[in-house]
Amino acid sequence: MEVDQVVRLPRLSRVAVCGGTHGNELSGVYLVKELLKEERKVMEEDEKKLVSVLLVLSNLPAMQQCHRYVDTDLNRSFTHATLNDPISDVAPYEVIRARELNAMLGPKGSPEAVDLVCDLHNTTANMGLCLIAYSDRDWICMHIFRHLQREMPDTPIRFIHFDIADKESFSLDSVGKHGFALELGPQPHGVVRSNIYTAMKVGVQHMLNWVRLFNSGTVFEGGFVDVYTLIKHIDYPRDSETHNITAAIHPHLQDRDFCLLHPEDPLFQTFSGETLTYKGNEPLYPFFINEGAYYEKGIALYLARKRRVVVPAIQVQPEQQGFASKKEE
Amino acid sequence: MEVDQVVRLPRLSRVAVCGGTHGNELSGVYLVKELLKEERKVMEEDEKKLVSVLLVLSNLPAMQQCHRYVDTDLNRSFTHATLNDPISDVAPYEVIRARELNAMLGPKGSPEAVDLVCDLHNTTANMGLCLIAYSDRDWICMHIFRHLQREMPDTPIRFIHFDIADKESFSLDSVGKHGFALELGPQPHGVVRSNIYTAMKVGVQHMLNWVRLFNSGTVFEGGFVDVYTLIKHIDYPRDSETHNITAAIHPHLQDRDFCLLHPEDPLFQTFSGETLTYKGNEPLYPFFINEGAYYEKGIALYLARKRRVVVPAIQVQPEQQGFASKKEE
Repeated sequence: MEVDQVVRLPRLSRVAVCGGTHGNELSGVYLVKELLKEERKVMEEDEKKLVSVLLVLSNLPAMQQCHRYVDTDLNRSFTHATLNDPISDVAPYEVIRARELNAMLGPKGSPEAVDLVCDLHNTTANMGLCLIAYSDRDWICMHIFRHLQREMPDTPIRFIHFDIADKESFSLDSVGKHGFALELGPQPHGVVRSNIYTAMKVGVQHMLNWVRLFNSGTVFEGGFVDVYTLIKHIDYPRDSETHNITAAIHPHLQDRDFCLLHPEDPLFQTFSGETLTYKGNEPLYPFFINEGAYYEKGIALYLARKRRVVVPAIQVQPEQQGFASKKEE
Repeated sequence: MEVDQVVRLPRLSRVAVCGGTHGNELSGVYLVKELLKEERKVMEEDEKKLVSVLLVLSNLPAMQQCHRYVDTDLNRSFTHATLNDPISDVAPYEVIRARELNAMLGPKGSPEAVDLVCDLHNTTANMGLCLIAYSDRDWICMHIFRHLQREMPDTPIRFIHFDIADKESFSLDSVGKHGFALELGPQPHGVVRSNIYTAMKVGVQHMLNWVRLFNSGTVFEGGFVDVYTLIKHIDYPRDSETHNITAAIHPHLQDRDFCLLHPEDPLFQTFSGETLTYKGNEPLYPFFINEGAYYEKGIALYLARKRRVVVPAIQVQPEQQGFASKKEE
């Protein structure tokens, strides 16, 4: 692949922006509510025709309780098996809701699926703004990432790659032809912080602007993206009998997401005051350090390898250019 | 009252340290669990006789769910009415539990009550370490406060006064003869941060050391305490129909607990981007700014007046001095 060879990709006609997939991640909840309000106002006809935006509040009952979920984690319920296996009468609410969302935005893997799903999330970890995707060669997601980096130079922005097969991909964003989670932190769950809300709002606006530019025929030049690929996770030290955690993230590691963790660096501090160090063989990049929702999942932090991926120039396929060009035909 | 006149006060024989009163405030949960472990180890006989420490996990079902409460806020359930009114068969779990705790540590207002209750809490607000009490003339609480200030010079420590009559006092710490909430932040609910956990642990150790010194006859010199007395609270702007909040704490105010808020200072930023200012008549000190658990209570922040209170020298009443002196009799 040559960097300066322009790859032609289909138009992105329908984009879904989803909030409240986790009911206590409030930036996404309030941003989608705000966008729904603004949608009622008159929008420029040209803008409307360049992309159709679906605004989705994914898990209303969880939002009402201000909990992550009601019965089970909605954002782990989009695997092929959970969407397609026979369903019982007492299925968890979120398993039923996942099928509704799959019918609305998918079906996953089909030509009817929306072109792009952007699912809004918050984390208690100090991760800044991250795009999390299942592919490191989805040029749409990677060009959107590069666009956000250019347009938001004061915000730390990273690209995280979950290297998981399509069938096993578990999150709402996997339902679209392209998709990513837009993850912003640090923000406590059940709280909205203006700075995090605003960064999310600006990020979504730039993402939609990029889609409009793409659909109207703009050529986006090639370049590079630094990709953080998930390698493994580490659980908290736990009491063998009670399964209670016996240590917290070490103060030297807390809030240092994406700072290289070397073997023998401090990892945990036990509740009695001892330091436990990282026993891995290679330095890796930690992220989701001390994410509140992951205590129950047995995850204290994730570790990633970083590598540079070459991204080609892209442009929309000519027969599918935007409204403006079509009018000239 | 003369500052250098020594006030004689009864011995503090029994002290309760409580965690998990809110099940998702994890520093207190893990600290009390750790202290329960350490209790099993051999303690110096002299130390034991100087004070008897009761360690309490207040709300186990809420801790298991990692929620603030199961049915209703336990830490609002210790008013005279809630503890004493006729109880129905379908009473909320926490109303029943409040009566159990009142039987164990009180009864509130009676001579049988424990001498001191220290109830451990966390907040998402940037409040450092605070003692919250119902009195600004409880010399025991105020001397403990001064001791923590001396012993923890790197930690911001404040004394908050809720000016509420005994009968209306609502929190667990009101059950003891003396009592205060030890509030530490910022820490997201459902998360434990090493630095906050450690500050709480050190604070509790210094508090218990102070009680042992007091019981063994030490004279504590008089001085001053800056008291922040709660004046009022402000709710978020809300949509009149849905009651949803329409703004977050302004980024200029976020994390600036105990920094004087002047009339016309930025207070909120609406989700559409406008700034709303503080419309009060006098400058006041904000605290509990953007506390996660207070969204449902209609509280965006509290406002306090600060004033300096003269605290007399104190010493334990001679007939009730500690073990060491008694042995010499």
